[in-house]
Amino acid sequence: MNREIHLVKRPEAQPTDEHLKIVESHKPEPKEGEVLIKTLYISVDPYMRGRMSDAKSYIDPFQLNEPIEGGGVGEVVESNVDHLSEGDIVTGMLSWKEYSTAKGDQLRKIDPELGPVTTSLGILGMPGLTAYFGLMDIGQPKKGETIVVSGAAGAVGSAVVQIGKIQGCRVIGIAGTDEKTTYLKETLGIDEAINYKTENVSEALDRACPDGIDVYFDNVGGEISDAIYPRLNKFARIAQCGAIASYNIPNDQGPRMQMHLIKSSALIKGFTVGDYQDRFTEGFQHLSKWLKEGRLSYEETISEGFEEIPNAFFGLFEGANLGKQLVKVAEPRQK
Amino acid sequence: MNREIHLVKRPEAQPTDEHLKIVESHKPEPKEGEVLIKTLYISVDPYMRGRMSDAKSYIDPFQLNEPIEGGGVGEVVESNVDHLSEGDIVTGMLSWKEYSTAKGDQLRKIDPELGPVTTSLGILGMPGLTAYFGLMDIGQPKKGETIVVSGAAGAVGSAVVQIGKIQGCRVIGIAGTDEKTTYLKETLGIDEAINYKTENVSEALDRACPDGIDVYFDNVGGEISDAIYPRLNKFARIAQCGAIASYNIPNDQGPRMQMHLIKSSALIKGFTVGDYQDRFTEGFQHLSKWLKEGRLSYEETISEGFEEIPNAFFGLFEGANLGKQLVKVAEPRQK
Repeated sequence: MNREIHLVKRPEAQPTDEHLKIVESHKPEPKEGEVLIKTLYISVDPYMRGRMSDAKSYIDPFQLNEPIEGGGVGEVVESNVDHLSEGDIVTGMLSWKEYSTAKGDQLRKIDPELGPVTTSLGILGMPGLTAYFGLMDIGQPKKGETIVVSGAAGAVGSAVVQIGKIQGCRVIGIAGTDEKTTYLKETLGIDEAINYKTENVSEALDRACPDGIDVYFDNVGGEISDAIYPRLNKFARIAQCGAIASYNIPNDQGPRMQMHLIKSSALIKGFTVGDYQDRFTEGFQHLSKWLKEGRLSYEETISEGFEEIPNAFFGLFEGANLGKQLVKVAEPRQK
Repeated sequence: MNREIHLVKRPEAQPTDEHLKIVESHKPEPKEGEVLIKTLYISVDPYMRGRMSDAKSYIDPFQLNEPIEGGGVGEVVESNVDHLSEGDIVTGMLSWKEYSTAKGDQLRKIDPELGPVTTSLGILGMPGLTAYFGLMDIGQPKKGETIVVSGAAGAVGSAVVQIGKIQGCRVIGIAGTDEKTTYLKETLGIDEAINYKTENVSEALDRACPDGIDVYFDNVGGEISDAIYPRLNKFARIAQCGAIASYNIPNDQGPRMQMHLIKSSALIKGFTVGDYQDRFTEGFQHLSKWLKEGRLSYEETISEGFEEIPNAFFGLFEGANLGKQLVKVAEPRQK
């Protein structure tokens, strides 16, 4: 037997159990060019909320009554592909199934000797690359500048914080629990960390950014960003990576911000990591090097069990995760 | 005797007669390095609303109970400067006075043989340069792309429309009267013109932009821009020049737009013409060439009389002007 998680209703606001359903099925048969994969880890990511809507976007919506798909790590249990063998650990876009088939050319083989396989879903995967390209290409940080990062203790944010420090910048992080601000300060060595749930963000920014804000890496949007815009320095750059505060609020309203952009001649650039596909090798090289040198660290929050995938996903919108949120679905058959 | 217009109260919303006052004074005496100028034309511009507030901005606020200053054209009536003589026509930042003094090195002499002196306040002045740099540097239009221009019949907008056509783009303009949309279509040869006061802008954009929007030159912000964001193409560019719809509305609220920027990997860049000071010569060269070739035309709305300056300024916020809004204060003493 096999289990799958289907989207059964499109959420208008916060996704809940009524939108996702665990469905029993049979193990699929891999066709020519495909492999059968036993899912080991599933990555849940805020961007997936967008695919649950059927609005036009950079990526097609999930289909109703079909499995969700997202980043994952799995073990090849049957292969109809020359370059992959039983026992290989692979990463790629996997269906939310205990066992799934995938095309061999859309999977990347991981060498487990190089480090934990979960890093392919985090610091050495899409979140790490998102942090790298958003900060370096859009943020263009210069030594001594002030960077503010929202969602700073998440998978992307915590990488941005550390890359910002590597660039010689003053880095301020905003997060939603004292555990997270402590992590930012004590583990990542951030200059200032603001708990937006217990502090007045505007006042805290005035204290933490006496010289204004040069770069803002935005994962959240909403009221936190409202407090950033009036504090931008001339020619500030904003990497608009996410807007999780708005994802579950239909027609979310807030102060118009065009005037702030004019006053500071500031730039906002929306992006997704796919925009940088041609430069992934460059990103991997930098991230791997910094990781080996001990200049990058990462955290993971790992839920256990296939049936925990929906809750792990819902928890993203409450900020339940420190670092990368994963779900461990199974152990590999052989280590 | 002399007359001046002072800011006597900072407006919270729409500026009115209670904020500006005509004050009688004496003709000033030019010091060493200064000239005495008889004001011929005064330029009223939307950006001046920002200087009436004391909020931090790219330019200092006007002082209370002091004359407003802005772009103007005048005639030198007395000179303590080597390179300027009585009778010279000059342009620069002038106080709103019938007679004012100014430093000689902050004035530019105009050759009236080359064309109407008022072009130095319009197509060959700040509005023309604003259009040129905003569109070319931020908008980066490519042949065949779709450009939408808000405030399209104003001094800046009408120049943007024409430069967009010169670049081989499909250009759609948004304006607020049928007179303006007719001007855009019949005189400027725009592809489509939308009257936002009589049409549903979203529906009109769907009709006018079947291939989406690649470049948006925004003079207005507000609800018109709200309708643009969901229609941006991948990698769209927005030149944020003005936001006149918000200038007179304290804490203006609207739909948050970060998600649209992410979905389309779009860029918004605020700017003011001063950001391009080092490249003004390049801008003048292009604009003069296109003007001589008959590829650029311009309109002026000219009020008559010094005492009409406040009304001409107030009228900007009602869209009273077609093309550049000027006030003619006096005739030159000699032609």
